[in-house]
Amino acid sequence: MVPEMEFIISTTKKQELVDITHQVEGSLAKSGVNDGLCNVYVPHATAAIAINENADPEITLDIIDALDKMVKEGGWRHDRIDNNAASHIKAAIVGPSANIPVKEGRLQLGRWQDIFLCEFDGPRERKVIVTVTKQGR
Amino acid sequence: MVPEMEFIISTTKKQELVDITHQVEGSLAKSGVNDGLCNVYVPHATAAIAINENADPEITLDIIDALDKMVKEGGWRHDRIDNNAASHIKAAIVGPSANIPVKEGRLQLGRWQDIFLCEFDGPRERKVIVTVTKQGR
Amino acid sequence: MVPEMEFIISTTKKQELVDITHQVEGSLAKSGVNDGLCNVYVPHATAAIAINENADPEITLDIIDALDKMVKEGGWRHDRIDNNAASHIKAAIVGPSANIPVKEGRLQLGRWQDIFLCEFDGPRERKVIVTVTKQGR
Repeated sequence: MVPEMEFIISTTKKQELVDITHQVEGSLAKSGVNDGLCNVYVPHATAAIAINENADPEITLDIIDALDKMVKEGGWRHDRIDNNAASHIKAAIVGPSANIPVKEGRLQLGRWQDIFLCEFDGPRERKVIVTVTKQGR
Repeated sequence: MVPEMEFIISTTKKQELVDITHQVEGSLAKSGVNDGLCNVYVPHATAAIAINENADPEITLDIIDALDKMVKEGGWRHDRIDNNAASHIKAAIVGPSANIPVKEGRLQLGRWQDIFLCEFDGPRERKVIVTVTKQGR
Repeated sequence: MVPEMEFIISTTKKQELVDITHQVEGSLAKSGVNDGLCNVYVPHATAAIAINENADPEITLDIIDALDKMVKEGGWRHDRIDNNAASHIKAAIVGPSANIPVKEGRLQLGRWQDIFLCEFDGPRERKVIVTVTKQGR
């Protein structure tokens, strides 16, 4: 039996980066894998997974601002249907998953790295799926 | 023996996003893996793999337009050699692969997610490689 | 015992893309895996891993220029603390890892693809972690 390794994050803003490192570590512990690769996946088309600095929370606001400058709101074809084209474009660029090496049961994140759920069209409930594959020998 | 899990997509435009979810599902079925991680990889430097909405096909045109605004055509060093620098830059930013969790033999794509081959310098024949690794216990 | 599969790259510029394909191939050889997935991960929040063309070295300068245009220097909140916000934003967009399929012990890179460490805040010593997971059957 493969353990259930999913959790839900309820975002509270239109756009925000939510640190989910702790929840991913909880899923990893359940996996029973000591050495391998941990994939963190968000099954939503207006959200993404990113890895970046954890120490200064303002960096997450800078990342949102930078993406807002790259992908302006309004004027997209999809806005006629759902009015959230910019959210989809940002999600496609950042991507729905990240992979982190696992060694002796621990995520090999750098000292300044944490894992973030990127909400681009909230507030919503977002599912996160954690999959841990084993290092080969 | 590991089964052959590759397929070819013939793109028809200079730039387009081609939905390859069905072909990836076919490769996954051949892998015999029930629980794990499915990697979709394009071994080309002017193409990429993205995951995004499938319901409104116009979102794929919006994504191409957004990348065109971020990475303007012309004026790059590499254009003197091959005249496709913008295609390379877009491919580097979006990235050549995506990973999707697999559970009970099925891709855990969200309701609004499909897998797309991003052509940035077509029309061309593009190879796609599918690799499925097993969840550890 | 899982073999040590890490190496250090000393970058020499503020920003550069360093080709690390040869080092990754060395780690892959030590892994003993013939068929699977090779993950290349950088545990730093101002560096990234990208895959792109190897033949014309100027493409790496074009990629740096394109990111500089997308993410301008200065004016970010995090600059008040560390003056490297743009480096963090670029790292978050490009991402800290890449995955390459492995077949018969060889990376399935395309003819025009190599693996690059992207330095956005150098010169520094950067660690790269290689993890190889086995294809399931």
